[in-house]
Amino acid sequence: MGHVKRLKCLVCGTEYDENEVMYTCPKCGDNGLLEVEYDYESIKREFTKEYLSNNKSYSLWRYLPLLPINDPSKIAPLQVGFTPLYQVPRIREDLGVSNLFVKDDGRNPTASLKDRASAIVVSKAQELGKTEITCASTGNAASSLAGATASLGLKSYIFVPKNAPKAKLTQLLVFGATVFAVNGTYDEAFDLSIKATREFGWYNRNTGFNPYTVEGKKTVALEIAEQLSFDVPNYVFVSVGDGNIISGVYKGFFDLLNLGFIDRMPKIVAVQAEGCSPVVDAVNGDGIIKPVVPNTIADSISVGIPRSGIMAVKYIKNSNGFGIKVSDEEILKAIKYLGTMSGIFAEPAASTSFAGYLKALKEGLIKGSDKVVVIITGNGLKDIDSAMKSVKEPIYIDPTIEDVKRKVMEINELFRRR
Amino acid sequence: MGHVKRLKCLVCGTEYDENEVMYTCPKCGDNGLLEVEYDYESIKREFTKEYLSNNKSYSLWRYLPLLPINDPSKIAPLQVGFTPLYQVPRIREDLGVSNLFVKDDGRNPTASLKDRASAIVVSKAQELGKTEITCASTGNAASSLAGATASLGLKSYIFVPKNAPKAKLTQLLVFGATVFAVNGTYDEAFDLSIKATREFGWYNRNTGFNPYTVEGKKTVALEIAEQLSFDVPNYVFVSVGDGNIISGVYKGFFDLLNLGFIDRMPKIVAVQAEGCSPVVDAVNGDGIIKPVVPNTIADSISVGIPRSGIMAVKYIKNSNGFGIKVSDEEILKAIKYLGTMSGIFAEPAASTSFAGYLKALKEGLIKGSDKVVVIITGNGLKDIDSAMKSVKEPIYIDPTIEDVKRKVMEINELFRRR
Repeated sequence: MGHVKRLKCLVCGTEYDENEVMYTCPKCGDNGLLEVEYDYESIKREFTKEYLSNNKSYSLWRYLPLLPINDPSKIAPLQVGFTPLYQVPRIREDLGVSNLFVKDDGRNPTASLKDRASAIVVSKAQELGKTEITCASTGNAASSLAGATASLGLKSYIFVPKNAPKAKLTQLLVFGATVFAVNGTYDEAFDLSIKATREFGWYNRNTGFNPYTVEGKKTVALEIAEQLSFDVPNYVFVSVGDGNIISGVYKGFFDLLNLGFIDRMPKIVAVQAEGCSPVVDAVNGDGIIKPVVPNTIADSISVGIPRSGIMAVKYIKNSNGFGIKVSDEEILKAIKYLGTMSGIFAEPAASTSFAGYLKALKEGLIKGSDKVVVIITGNGLKDIDSAMKSVKEPIYIDPTIEDVKRKVMEINELFRRR
Repeated sequence: MGHVKRLKCLVCGTEYDENEVMYTCPKCGDNGLLEVEYDYESIKREFTKEYLSNNKSYSLWRYLPLLPINDPSKIAPLQVGFTPLYQVPRIREDLGVSNLFVKDDGRNPTASLKDRASAIVVSKAQELGKTEITCASTGNAASSLAGATASLGLKSYIFVPKNAPKAKLTQLLVFGATVFAVNGTYDEAFDLSIKATREFGWYNRNTGFNPYTVEGKKTVALEIAEQLSFDVPNYVFVSVGDGNIISGVYKGFFDLLNLGFIDRMPKIVAVQAEGCSPVVDAVNGDGIIKPVVPNTIADSISVGIPRSGIMAVKYIKNSNGFGIKVSDEEILKAIKYLGTMSGIFAEPAASTSFAGYLKALKEGLIKGSDKVVVIITGNGLKDIDSAMKSVKEPIYIDPTIEDVKRKVMEINELFRRR
């Protein structure tokens, strides 16, 4: 058995046994996000630094005692997590900063951080004996769910906005999901999937609505902390859509603080696109989430009604963090900068966090000596059309060395004139 | 210093000191592929099972004593290798096989196995003081080189056929490479890059032409062996284009055999597309490579003149392996089957090996009880247009539960009728 003590409503504080509720607080409805509370004393007896250093599990399951899993025999086979934390030496030199790290979570099985949540939710579904799972998604949560269900032989029913990037839709179909391409927004797809959950009795993975998504996503913070030998960064920059990943990041550090592995919390920084910034506006303002009509190239964070917004705002404030907004142009520039300077390829929603970091540094909100981790949430291969907007065309040539020489001379000439 | 003893021409047997030659044998020209020979006795003193079990390097650098690196301070920062080897339980059950493993090398930094070769070559370039590197590529070798050079601040000049998949071209441009899109085939791009190497003094990473690509790619075999606790599989299935990866797979097991880590070689099986099968035809025939005009959907193995073909044929025969051909239709079907049954998303050239495995099993060339590893060389996100051909369209709906109900009823009805 796992070490979950209870689930507690973020709004009304009602406490539930873990078998008593499945999704949000029955009293508070969709706003009633549940926090998963653990018996830390019981975890401490199992989860020690020695346990970790002897641990040969190179995936998020290395943190099993900290996860809401009651039957480890039911976990899905895809190897999720254990992604690299890079020191990015060229970027440090270029920016004159000494302590920057980039966590490349595009290295997960379906190429996004969402695999962490799907791994947990699918295991919970198995524990509950559910064989059909649904979710609404801007794309990544869906493809991660479809990959996880494929590995186990569960059925997945996915609701995506019909304009989701082709790569994400294709992943879903290759993984054998039943894909409903909704003639509407992500927010409409979300509501529809909840109605379908009630109608058909499917298990629902929706971000926030299912309390275990945060528990999966927190493993990115557990990894960051371990990779930094539990010497906590000053800031962690996170792209924000629903607010679920950033809540997970907070929760991971919070668990480690309660377990005595770290001695303080990092400041958590929310980055959103200027065209869709309800969480940042709430964090920097009165704390109240106001829905917006999203307008940004960063599809994964194009979320007008952030489903974990309340939790995100609470956690960011608790951590003494802040919010920052970046333009679509800055998001595209960050893709190119990160790629050219580190070899990391981020999708727009993923480079958003890095664009926010660059802006915060420029505006003096953080110092060059601060220890900072920027999380890259998804691989650029997920959205090639957007990435193309960040770069120039290749140089078209005929297969002759004369043509190559001519073009190389032109490049060198251009370079000299600069 | 590393443990390289000498380089030896595969054709004429001439031996060279590692500082004496850079590419192929000067006497034999392009055919004169060099084999890298090690001082195994000296490696044995350093590289033991205890060395491995204490090793905290979770990348291909955990095999450093077996790699041709003389200055480890020059290695590139991207975390290459240490990719999962899956037991694929659903596929085993579906096919009635007991001992199948799938190695997902699409989990590398730029999403293909080629990162292994680029990591080594870029480190060699640094040792040689070269700051400009070129290569010709169907796409993956190029994007892996561009990623690696970006991480180090080296310049890369890439020659690709102009019809390379958009995702691969985009990766190159995001990584800041100078990309020459050649109005011609991969084979023409290859020749052109060698002319440019001579013209401009760039370091050349071309597959086979540079003797260290095999040394990088062999790490996939080192990992497979370690992941199987050095209990060697009966067969390893590999998609073949230039023949360089399959040569690497052989070389990895060969090194381990010479070091006493394993007691026999696996049989290495080459899989090619029916529309481009010069290596398979040579292996199953008189051993002579005859160039072809390629015609296959699997762009990464669409190679009419296999540059490591001689080496590949020699090694496959040495291992008592064989060759097998699959149709483009079988390649596409294998993408969908692998995705739906395991959550692994392969590009066409990567699913080719799996299609070959399915065919070999069906035709009785291997047994269901054989221990088999199938290597997936690249992620399906690299070529979405091809993957789309393997699946049906999503189900388009309006954002109403009524529409969902109607569609779910139709699906169930269809399912009942089957």
